[in-house]
Amino acid sequence: MIKANVMYPYTEGARFDHAYYRDKHMPMVKARLGNACAYYTVERGLAGRVPGSPPAFVAMCAFICESVEAYQAALHEHGAEIRGDLANYTDIVPVFQFSEVVVERSDG
Amino acid sequence: MIKANVMYPYTEGARFDHAYYRDKHMPMVKARLGNACAYYTVERGLAGRVPGSPPAFVAMCAFICESVEAYQAALHEHGAEIRGDLANYTDIVPVFQFSEVVVERSDG
Repeated sequence: MIKANVMYPYTEGARFDHAYYRDKHMPMVKARLGNACAYYTVERGLAGRVPGSPPAFVAMCAFICESVEAYQAALHEHGAEIRGDLANYTDIVPVFQFSEVVVERSDG
Repeated sequence: MIKANVMYPYTEGARFDHAYYRDKHMPMVKARLGNACAYYTVERGLAGRVPGSPPAFVAMCAFICESVEAYQAALHEHGAEIRGDLANYTDIVPVFQFSEVVVERSDG
């Protein structure tokens, strides 16, 4: 099982609409990924180690998928629509990475 | 609900023992966090967007906790032991951030 992580670096003065991201963008991407994606997670950055310091990322999401290949095949088909929606909620260029799921959840 | 994220930036030539991290370090930290932590997740970085490119982070974990305060109180007590274990699996200085859990899992 793999995670496709999308991470939005904290940027002074940048725009990020967390409500649009949660309510519109993420459900749309999940619908386009279809069976390639089991589920997704979304988080909003609060702070770094020191309270009150900015977080490294203002938002992060992960799509938990069967394989890199399944994710890429779905993205190949719907990537233009997904990328086209970015400007509706942010002007930050996200960092992307694939990870192997080592522990999905420790109590699972 | 919050996530305490620990992210190890990819560094050319750096050391990271994924087996020790999964089998020794993470269960030890969970034991020290006690009831402050519901569960944790672990992942191993595979690649960036381009296949074969290095991932932003070689490893990431998240402790899913009731609150920042509960996590900090447990860390205050056991931080020295936890930090002291780092050299047993890596020489990378991790990036840390607190996040608010927006969607724990979309199918949940």
